[in-house]
Amino acid sequence: MTNPAAAGLGAFFAPRAIAVIGASNDPGRIGGRPVDFCKAAGFAGPIYPVNPTRDEVQGLKAYPDIESVPGDVDLAILAVPSARVADTLDACGRRGVRAAVIFSAGFSEVGGAGAAAQAELLEIARRHGIRILGPNCLGFYSAASGACGTFTTGLEGGMPRRGRIGLITQSGAYGTHLLSMAKARRLGVAGWVSTGNEADVTVAECLAHMIESDDVGAVGLYMEGVNRPDMLIRALTRARELRKPVTIMKVGASEVGARAVQSHTASLAGSDASFQAVIEHYGALRAETTEEMFDTLYAATVAPLPAGDRLGILTVSGGAGVLMADAAEKHGLSVPPMPDASVEKLLERNPLASPRNPVDITAHALNDFDLIPDYLSEMMRVGAFDAYCAFFTSWTASPVLGPRLREALLGTLGDHDRPFALVGLFNEDQAAAYEDRGVLTFADPSRAVAALARLARLARGFDAAAPDALPEIAETRIAAGAMTEAAAKARLAEAGIACLPERVVTTADAAVEAAAEMGGGPVVLKILSPDIAHKTEVGGVALNLRGAGPVRAAAQRMLEEIPAKVPDARIDGLLVSPMAGEGVELIVGTHRDPVMGPMVMVGLGGVLAEVLKDVALARAPVTAEEALGLLARLRGGAILDGVRGRPGVDRKAVADVIARLSVLAAANADSVESIEINPLLARPDGAVALDALILPAAAEDG
Amino acid sequence: MTNPAAAGLGAFFAPRAIAVIGASNDPGRIGGRPVDFCKAAGFAGPIYPVNPTRDEVQGLKAYPDIESVPGDVDLAILAVPSARVADTLDACGRRGVRAAVIFSAGFSEVGGAGAAAQAELLEIARRHGIRILGPNCLGFYSAASGACGTFTTGLEGGMPRRGRIGLITQSGAYGTHLLSMAKARRLGVAGWVSTGNEADVTVAECLAHMIESDDVGAVGLYMEGVNRPDMLIRALTRARELRKPVTIMKVGASEVGARAVQSHTASLAGSDASFQAVIEHYGALRAETTEEMFDTLYAATVAPLPAGDRLGILTVSGGAGVLMADAAEKHGLSVPPMPDASVEKLLERNPLASPRNPVDITAHALNDFDLIPDYLSEMMRVGAFDAYCAFFTSWTASPVLGPRLREALLGTLGDHDRPFALVGLFNEDQAAAYEDRGVLTFADPSRAVAALARLARLARGFDAAAPDALPEIAETRIAAGAMTEAAAKARLAEAGIACLPERVVTTADAAVEAAAEMGGGPVVLKILSPDIAHKTEVGGVALNLRGAGPVRAAAQRMLEEIPAKVPDARIDGLLVSPMAGEGVELIVGTHRDPVMGPMVMVGLGGVLAEVLKDVALARAPVTAEEALGLLARLRGGAILDGVRGRPGVDRKAVADVIARLSVLAAANADSVESIEINPLLARPDGAVALDALILPAAAEDG
Repeated sequence: MTNPAAAGLGAFFAPRAIAVIGASNDPGRIGGRPVDFCKAAGFAGPIYPVNPTRDEVQGLKAYPDIESVPGDVDLAILAVPSARVADTLDACGRRGVRAAVIFSAGFSEVGGAGAAAQAELLEIARRHGIRILGPNCLGFYSAASGACGTFTTGLEGGMPRRGRIGLITQSGAYGTHLLSMAKARRLGVAGWVSTGNEADVTVAECLAHMIESDDVGAVGLYMEGVNRPDMLIRALTRARELRKPVTIMKVGASEVGARAVQSHTASLAGSDASFQAVIEHYGALRAETTEEMFDTLYAATVAPLPAGDRLGILTVSGGAGVLMADAAEKHGLSVPPMPDASVEKLLERNPLASPRNPVDITAHALNDFDLIPDYLSEMMRVGAFDAYCAFFTSWTASPVLGPRLREALLGTLGDHDRPFALVGLFNEDQAAAYEDRGVLTFADPSRAVAALARLARLARGFDAAAPDALPEIAETRIAAGAMTEAAAKARLAEAGIACLPERVVTTADAAVEAAAEMGGGPVVLKILSPDIAHKTEVGGVALNLRGAGPVRAAAQRMLEEIPAKVPDARIDGLLVSPMAGEGVELIVGTHRDPVMGPMVMVGLGGVLAEVLKDVALARAPVTAEEALGLLARLRGGAILDGVRGRPGVDRKAVADVIARLSVLAAANADSVESIEINPLLARPDGAVALDALILPAAAEDG
Repeated sequence: MTNPAAAGLGAFFAPRAIAVIGASNDPGRIGGRPVDFCKAAGFAGPIYPVNPTRDEVQGLKAYPDIESVPGDVDLAILAVPSARVADTLDACGRRGVRAAVIFSAGFSEVGGAGAAAQAELLEIARRHGIRILGPNCLGFYSAASGACGTFTTGLEGGMPRRGRIGLITQSGAYGTHLLSMAKARRLGVAGWVSTGNEADVTVAECLAHMIESDDVGAVGLYMEGVNRPDMLIRALTRARELRKPVTIMKVGASEVGARAVQSHTASLAGSDASFQAVIEHYGALRAETTEEMFDTLYAATVAPLPAGDRLGILTVSGGAGVLMADAAEKHGLSVPPMPDASVEKLLERNPLASPRNPVDITAHALNDFDLIPDYLSEMMRVGAFDAYCAFFTSWTASPVLGPRLREALLGTLGDHDRPFALVGLFNEDQAAAYEDRGVLTFADPSRAVAALARLARLARGFDAAAPDALPEIAETRIAAGAMTEAAAKARLAEAGIACLPERVVTTADAAVEAAAEMGGGPVVLKILSPDIAHKTEVGGVALNLRGAGPVRAAAQRMLEEIPAKVPDARIDGLLVSPMAGEGVELIVGTHRDPVMGPMVMVGLGGVLAEVLKDVALARAPVTAEEALGLLARLRGGAILDGVRGRPGVDRKAVADVIARLSVLAAANADSVESIEINPLLARPDGAVALDALILPAAAEDG
């Protein structure tokens, strides 16, 4: 038995020969389309139509069955009724076929018997070492080889313009829509795949394959669920190494959307927030809309990535300049000013200009066209810009002005290595003349700036690829089973997380003694029980107790009242600790996402985390450096720097706690459901856990 | 002297006759374009080219000067050098011209002498009762009359498709871009104006004029500053009455953008947040991007407005359905489920379907086309949907499926009165066939849903147009000049805003006595001085004082130490009040926006307002109902409903305070800079001002 993971996807995308089983002479039918498309796309190898009732299919010699096909066949396209798929696949296997596309529906997507039938297909495929795309998929298209193992209507009326964009989608219908939209927009496409039920080949594996290809510059994914998160992460990691942008649409972010996903696919949805955190961690971008995905792919395959976030704006309309500056701020690009000396020089050249940045040449450029190269070259010479956006409205499309403008801009840019987006109106040829020289064209200035900003985010993601090391923790294993607060804190302390000094006592007298030993300052008493997760609710927390009297009274009350209130709870005693003092309260926790695995989360304590959901999330483990990045993403993060006269807190100490907790979570992903420090008190000189909770995984997972 | 405000803009948009002064025989030149465009647009009245060197211009008889023109002239288009504008305008005035478009630049936009020259133009115009558009403008276009007082390149190559969209812009260059984009997108345009320097006619007055026209269904504004906020508000109020959607792009939202606006136009920018609050209050929508503005205008002129926010989603792709559900939640539309009985019925009809909402027919509709009318009619019959979005991917564009689909959809919809957006691929004719029947077409499903959501927001804005009455306040006038906290609170109390009972004392003994009279509970001492705005900073606040000893000590300390710390401050004594107890702290304030006038603001106290800028803003005065709307816009507003086991607070009482404060601010807009209640303590049984500050306007404003 061949290990299917060992065989790559080359037999799909660059097969030597293709057999179409169930081939039709009608190029409009499902079995006719792959033949028609392969011919139209210029597939160079032999195409063998298999059809027992015809000698010829669409001008090609046809064969009654796969056994009769004369040469080696790498790829078989199965356009046969679902009941015949298994036998056909088996015959293909015997014949030495290496890859099969299965269009037929009626498998795992209908559940029950369909799922069993799909399992049988996989078993047959594994036996023969065949890779399967589908079933219930629309197949794929490869521009380089001309192989079209698909019946998508997206290839009707011609192949897309050839280019460096790869598109991968689970959904057939939306995949067709993507292909049709890409064609309507004249985007350059290198390849397209629809994976359907993913019995074998997944979106993630297609991504891993595509990014290795020199033909592919950037990849767009459309997903409804994640079947192989490990493979997705490996592919994203590799894409980051190769600095190939990946942008992902994943539906199901909303409540009703997530419900609809469940009813639509067998994929487990997992938490949308976890998904987003993971892919962004590995340098991919989430796209919210189809146009946003296409804008990103277009920009990433036409223009270079910028080295930073500084945008130079060149315009002949003050208003458009302001509009682009607004968009820059909104999308996280900076708009630094030109140096004063240059501003003066450019003002001398055209006193009506506003050459600060946005650099507004004004419509005066119509009378003095050399202003355009003069201003742009000055921006390129002295301005510290990583990317440019220029607005020349309909001049770009004018028969007279258009060619002059192009000469002025492209002549000045030369062999530029920074992204440049030109906003104006363009017909196809006008746009192509710029794009061939690496210049992006847009009609909407806001959209142009947004696309440049996404390039900058992609570059930042790639540059952040060399993190510091994970914190070293001698013993990361956490024993299974329920754990008291004291045990949890002991475990965290061993892992290098500071906890308040504390003592476990079982009598009121011992509590008084422990409080005295802590220096006589105010103390906290907490009930200690593995069965009480929410201590406040049972009166199990007493704060700010000063002196023997109050400590004794509180201890006696808890030890008497709580066993009465919660008779089933095991009471291990009381925890005595000093009052923690001033600081900023955070909540740091880990949990297991059902799809993405162990995740670590940090939020500001109190209402900020609760009401405003102001939390940041990453897949565990994270390094301390990465944890600092999480803190930077908190909307209310300024509180950590001190507000209302308070001093700032030690962000590094907080980050260290997050990193250590994440290492514990990752090491115990099978036995621990969640770890929570709430609150973690951050102070100017460190961070200390005031409370901790470790929940074991439910038995069936442990 | 005629009052120019009395004369409307009819002489521009529907003139009986047009004179083009400085007319050129070359249709490409500035003076030639208006003649060429008027002919192309089919202007029916006489066009009189004025050119002293030619007998004929572009086939029309030319005249040496405006005096020689034979008939009455409503509109003169001045394409003459700036130095000749004043004389030409004067001649037009003597000749009885009612409106003039002035293209020439070199007026207020260059400052100094230009501003003076512009003032002279206005003086001439007022003397003759002529209305002026410009100077330094690109003029206007009216589809209904064919009048084209413009040289915009946006009309080159043909007029836009005729429709119900009005476009108004200050910027000439961006105005041209808007017109060109609208044409490229084949949007239906009723009229277009570029106002330039706005010596006389403003964007706001153009809006007021356009919305009264039956030809105009919705208006898009592009603004860089607001010259006549009063007129804008009147026009928006009227548009709301007429239920005609207005969507506004205003640039300068970012810091660098606002700076660039200042350098680009003479208009005062004001606060962007105030601008947005005001226009949304009057039912207009802010558009962030040009495409967003066009999507809104397109939707509002093709489809009816929805009565609510409930979206029905019909799809043949589960993924696209989820995508649209996600977009609905993001944009504030709800996606309510179909009734169970209907779900069962529809499942019986097609067991593969997911008919809950999103209602996924699945691609099975290809085999059974009647599924489409069956499912859609069931949704229309039993579903409580205010708007629909349907996804049929490239079926819409297919030569075979397209017409069948159109018949199925339009036949089922009949004379529908709810917005319906169809997502697919369309050529121009295919799109027009739907749009003629009031169905919107989009390629990107997210964009379709966003457009429907904006229609719903517009409808909500129109429906909210009948507010409750303003709170009645017997005496609203606030005396000019600085005011102590006690005086400010007394003023607020008179206006019906609850303040804590408090006493002013001048000795420590009196403080002890006052505290005792307040029932013996803990009290607060605060220093009372018109010169100390931030009491805490000088040690002028002592909280939670219980009993005579602590009260006396705190009072003595303040009365001794503060005069030493702040020797110039007048000390009026101490304020004694009871501790306020538990509640949610808010900040409620008013201030004067330099453009929009008095504004009222509410935010949650503490870090939420400070760090997260979680505040809501409206133009003062607001009614209590409107103030409730402000509270609903706070991101952290859930805190008001009680979190962490606390009870919810009395939102109505808070709203009443906001409304009363806003009435005070509006009544004293000339003498009061700001009023602030910080904190306002909201409790389950009311709201009470704990501190108040009234700042007088600076002397030059008072």
